Amino acid sequence: LSSDTDVSDNDVVEGVEVRVAKSIYMVSDGTGWTAEHCVNAALGQFDYCLVDHGCPVNTHLFSGIDDAEKLVEIIKQAAKQGALLVYTLADPSMAVYAKQACKLWSVRCTDVLGPIIEEIASHLEVSPSGLPRGASGRNFPLSEEYFRRIEAVEFTIKQDDGACPQNLAKADIILTGVSRTGKTPLSIYLAQKGYKVANVPIVMGVEMPKTLFKVDENKVFGLTINPVVLKNIRKARARTLGFGSEARSNYSEMDHVRQELEFAGRIFAENPVWPVIDVTGKAIEETAAVILRLYHDRKQKFTMPTISKRY
Amino acid sequence: LSSDTDVSDNDVVEGVEVRVAKSIYMVSDGTGWTAEHCVNAALGQFDYCLVDHGCPVNTHLFSGIDDAEKLVEIIKQAAKQGALLVYTLADPSMAVYAKQACKLWSVRCTDVLGPIIEEIASHLEVSPSGLPRGASGRNFPLSEEYFRRIEAVEFTIKQDDGACPQNLAKADIILTGVSRTGKTPLSIYLAQKGYKVANVPIVMGVEMPKTLFKVDENKVFGLTINPVVLKNIRKARARTLGFGSEARSNYSEMDHVRQELEFAGRIFAENPVWPVIDVTGKAIEETAAVILRLYHDRKQKFTMPTISKRY
Ligand SMILES: Nc1ncnc2c1ncn2[C@@H]1O[C@H](COP(=O)(O)O)[C@@H](O)[C@H]1O
Ligand SMILES: Nc1ncnc2c1ncn2[C@@H]1O[C@H](COP(=O)(O)O)[C@@H](O)[C@H]1O
Ligand SMILES: [Mg+2]
Ligand SMILES: [Mg+2]
Repeated sequence: LSSDTDVSDNDVVEGVEVRVAKSIYMVSDGTGWTAEHCVNAALGQFDYCLVDHGCPVNTHLFSGIDDAEKLVEIIKQAAKQGALLVYTLADPSMAVYAKQACKLWSVRCTDVLGPIIEEIASHLEVSPSGLPRGASGRNFPLSEEYFRRIEAVEFTIKQDDGACPQNLAKADIILTGVSRTGKTPLSIYLAQKGYKVANVPIVMGVEMPKTLFKVDENKVFGLTINPVVLKNIRKARARTLGFGSEARSNYSEMDHVRQELEFAGRIFAENPVWPVIDVTGKAIEETAAVILRLYHDRKQKFTMPTISKRY
Repeated sequence: LSSDTDVSDNDVVEGVEVRVAKSIYMVSDGTGWTAEHCVNAALGQFDYCLVDHGCPVNTHLFSGIDDAEKLVEIIKQAAKQGALLVYTLADPSMAVYAKQACKLWSVRCTDVLGPIIEEIASHLEVSPSGLPRGASGRNFPLSEEYFRRIEAVEFTIKQDDGACPQNLAKADIILTGVSRTGKTPLSIYLAQKGYKVANVPIVMGVEMPKTLFKVDENKVFGLTINPVVLKNIRKARARTLGFGSEARSNYSEMDHVRQELEFAGRIFAENPVWPVIDVTGKAIEETAAVILRLYHDRKQKFTMPTISKRY
């Protein structure tokens, strides 16, 4: 995934014309984030040939498409551009309409949620409402869950980077690790899912807050990473921050990186209950999945770890 | 969506037995977030009957399921529990296996991404890799995009609640509005999508930072909300924060709320380029969709606003 502003579908790179990008249109009567999430995951299956390897793709997300007129305009445009159409439309007449128009104008298309909604309907033996999320008449639930998430985000921001160690007891999850192991983005990712997260940096020569060793050990997670990868991440980071060359050398030099990871390793060894997660080569959401699997594992009736919710 | 820890499928509420919850199992060889996102959106279609209205649902998310043995165990359990199985499995042999096992044990099931991946494959005229995201051999791209997102999150945290007004020029998006219009969670949501966001509170009697009026007007968004709804949100908030009754009355009393929203309205009127978005009844991700639609609108070749990316 590169720049999100370039919508030209036919690029010239350094004078050489590359293959024309194929388009994927995503259409939703809501936000479009579901379609985007699915297309993004699906495109993971084509990583090996995207952008620089011969099959570039441009995606175009159309949200809030709640009437047939707008829908037709988009499908016509898709036909002109030879685009694939991926849609989520709650109103069954809109979904049928999309399908028919695509057939008429020979646009390849796929309904993301239709099949799941159908299965759930049969499973629950009730019918879907057919109402898009923004439909008037739907009254927005200012639910406990909603407030809980917002509170989690606000808590987590305040606890970033070791701030307010006196609040560690209030956190659901505490992350600890050396600089650039991804504590901050990971904390925020988990907060969005409703967990109050605090992160505590491990810095050589700096004492860890005492409160960290007084809280429930089961909620503390250590992060570690391959030293060579960390060195490279820090080099990039130091460039961004514009560190002077001296500070940089200390921060991102191999010897220092190794020593710091060893220092962290000793702290982890002294706290054997903390799971230690190697984040090397993991996206933020992958590490989040590992942590939440472990976090929920204690409360399970399943033999396999699972995250359970009630709707 | 209520508590995420209760996995009992048969509840007794105040002595009265309610209908047994139906289960949905979500299985992924990756994080499971795609399946979860889709099930969550799909369940929006059944809002009217979930938890308190007679068709409660329990979801169980199994992530990192990358071998047939684990898969079989889960499907057997699903059969026992009469659960619906929703899966995303990149390895085609695993996907086929899931389908066959579900047929054998009469488990209702649906493949979330299979159909999209197939359509994309035909569209691009290349084959999917069939490799799950965590597969060994896949080398993790520490891409520019990846670092850009992390930087956006870190920037956004630092700019929360009017902090560091000297940095407003560096933000991609600036949100402004009175307390409890959702500036913080919205900022974080947008940051996760790669935008550097700053939020500036509007407080009656407090001067706005001068820099706000010097930056590119096109990146500033005002948030407003229905006064009655805001009053209720603030009441809930004051309770959470444990404000004394005096501070609370000022913060959440109807008169004060109205005056403050009018004060904000005057600032918005003086800055007519700023779009003003009414967040009443909108989830964070819905407001985010509106803002990004406006944000990207300027750079479009489409008649319909779209968010475009290149993969
Ligand atoms: N809470 C909800 N209630 C009803 N429909 C929803 C809800 N959330 C998402 N949807 C529908 O699910 C599809 C995907 O939503 P979105 O991710 O906002 O594009 C759209 O058709 C929405 O209308
Ligand atoms: N970057 C990626 N590369 C390959 N496959 C992916 C990628 N991201 C997601 N997937 C696949 O898409 C499905 C959904 O992923 P997840 O949301 O992690 O459960 C799984 O089958 C993953 O293996
Ligand atoms: Mg940090
Ligand atoms: Mg705030």
